Amino acid sequence: MRGIIKKMEVSKIRQIALKMGEFEDGINFTIGEPSQDIPIEVKNEMLDKIQNVQLGYCTTGGLMELREKVAKYYNQYFGSNFNGDNCIITIGATEGIAVFCRAIVEDGDEILIPLPAYPGYEPNILMERGKPIYIDTSSKGFKVTAEMLEKNITDKTKAIILTFPNNPTGVCLSEEEMDKIADVVRRHNIYLLCDEIYASLAFEKFNSIAKYQDIEEKVIIISGFSKSHSMTGYRVGYMLSSKENISNLIKASQYTTTGVATVSQYGAIVALDKCLDRSEIIEENKQRVEYMSKGLERLGFDVIKSEGAFYVFAAYSKISNKDSLSFCNEILEKTHVGIVPGICFNVENYVRLSVTQDIPILEEALQRLEKYIKGI
Amino acid sequence: MRGIIKKMEVSKIRQIALKMGEFEDGINFTIGEPSQDIPIEVKNEMLDKIQNVQLGYCTTGGLMELREKVAKYYNQYFGSNFNGDNCIITIGATEGIAVFCRAIVEDGDEILIPLPAYPGYEPNILMERGKPIYIDTSSKGFKVTAEMLEKNITDKTKAIILTFPNNPTGVCLSEEEMDKIADVVRRHNIYLLCDEIYASLAFEKFNSIAKYQDIEEKVIIISGFSKSHSMTGYRVGYMLSSKENISNLIKASQYTTTGVATVSQYGAIVALDKCLDRSEIIEENKQRVEYMSKGLERLGFDVIKSEGAFYVFAAYSKISNKDSLSFCNEILEKTHVGIVPGICFNVENYVRLSVTQDIPILEEALQRLEKYIKGI
Repeated sequence: MRGIIKKMEVSKIRQIALKMGEFEDGINFTIGEPSQDIPIEVKNEMLDKIQNVQLGYCTTGGLMELREKVAKYYNQYFGSNFNGDNCIITIGATEGIAVFCRAIVEDGDEILIPLPAYPGYEPNILMERGKPIYIDTSSKGFKVTAEMLEKNITDKTKAIILTFPNNPTGVCLSEEEMDKIADVVRRHNIYLLCDEIYASLAFEKFNSIAKYQDIEEKVIIISGFSKSHSMTGYRVGYMLSSKENISNLIKASQYTTTGVATVSQYGAIVALDKCLDRSEIIEENKQRVEYMSKGLERLGFDVIKSEGAFYVFAAYSKISNKDSLSFCNEILEKTHVGIVPGICFNVENYVRLSVTQDIPILEEALQRLEKYIKGI
Repeated sequence: MRGIIKKMEVSKIRQIALKMGEFEDGINFTIGEPSQDIPIEVKNEMLDKIQNVQLGYCTTGGLMELREKVAKYYNQYFGSNFNGDNCIITIGATEGIAVFCRAIVEDGDEILIPLPAYPGYEPNILMERGKPIYIDTSSKGFKVTAEMLEKNITDKTKAIILTFPNNPTGVCLSEEEMDKIADVVRRHNIYLLCDEIYASLAFEKFNSIAKYQDIEEKVIIISGFSKSHSMTGYRVGYMLSSKENISNLIKASQYTTTGVATVSQYGAIVALDKCLDRSEIIEENKQRVEYMSKGLERLGFDVIKSEGAFYVFAAYSKISNKDSLSFCNEILEKTHVGIVPGICFNVENYVRLSVTQDIPILEEALQRLEKYIKGI
């Protein structure tokens, strides 16, 4: 067994989520699992296909109908010029990260990642012998700038990984900053992996990297249906890039998983056909995030202003000087409220809450936290 | 993009399968896709779960109920002593191969593979910087021996990969030979990956590696529900090994795919609960394989005697001296019968037929082949 595997940890977020099971009255803000059920139209399509079709292996790269519809969706919403050959269907966004690393990362390659960072990137980079280079963005309210990226590029830099709307902060970048970042990519021989899994849950118009069509050979977009259509359990993601990149990524994916469950792909087709409008979900998420942000600020947290998804990322330095893991463990034990330590995202003195509960539950959680904080 | 990826080919089998689409009267013996539909009990369970449960992410490593039932199944049929912690659920057997390589193969490691070999191993070994070392087994009717393995072990050997019932030949090993192979593994510091995806489709009692409990730390078994229960399109496989190995493989899998579609796992639980007896399927497969083998022998092929699964592997040197790709392409063009060249399995002058059609179609295929051969 490789040393890198032995040293690796099962996702800390999932470890804390598992602990939640001990508490009957636990309130779980750990895993990024949407509270809304999948759209009924998607359900019905999957039921129909299971009942009436003998579903076998899917074609390599995914159902062409789905690949084409994903491309069209991106063109319509995010200004790209893709077709079906620019798309591959993957096992959630996770396989996208894995396949990107298997296909692109070579020994000693440096991969730039602004902090805080989703914890799924690093293990894939390490497994493929690369080196994550983290960029501190705290001075700019966790909004990475083109300048910060430029400063960290060396002749060993193979790629940059960006996540917008960000997990854990929920921040997005302005069109102006995206222009500048596209220009950095234009001027260097590097890849840009953009994780846009929360793009269709942005609170305002989302500035996707997809519109910079002249650099499509260098840009690989990852997204999927887990968060937008609550399909976490059905495992449908995708990647978008140049036709040549996709044809290479298909080869890596073919030997990594063979492909996505065919029934899930039929469901995803209907998600794009009939359930593109996510405004109700977005409104619900936004209300919850704003309610929780205000409540936490009242308790002394400094909350990063979220612009999408359903996370709240908050500093607690006015409340406690504990490290984030101890802070979260104590909160869990004393209040049975499960929250994720910032260290999971490589940033200390912060916590993340996945705010996927109704307002009365948020209220209850805030009351418990208030009682705990007053007792410190 | 890594050179290894650019040089890699999309599965040749799938390329030929794709060509089949051109012919309205094509008879397709290419992809290893069972003809039987999934059991109705499995279907009903998946329908029920989609309809009535809000399915989210599955727990890391797979549903514990499924992991426990897989372990129990192996114990009951194949003499192991596993429990749920000895099992991880994977995206078909394919993710098992990928995760094995990501977790275990290091730069320059030699992996021994007897020929002919399933084409999914090599790309995973190469992506992880290993070196496949192929072993010619033709002198023993494609039944690898402990002696052949022993002879090829060097200080760079990291693992052996064995496939029984074999794809493409269908051969299995005797208990006596398995004893000897277990002993080779016992005496060397190496892993043994046993791909037993066709184990429950063996024509006679199957000699699994699972019964050698004293070497479970060195042995990793791969299998799944794709072939046994026609669940190719639902993507449920598993790996079995020591608790420590599995805990490490779970980490690699977590970051490769996050996990298997939850609904597919519920289906697989019912497959083990209610549909364990595959004797009808086996009988049907066996009749077809025997019918086709006899037919091909009548036409001048030398057929390897299959002992399981649904493949026929046959030498054609009495018929043609073409290389196997040209031979298969000519057959496809002239007869619209799709068969797979031996070179896909790294053996020349053979062809593989995935015999998943009813007897009248096999008869029709044989007639077309006869006409073609007479015309050479």
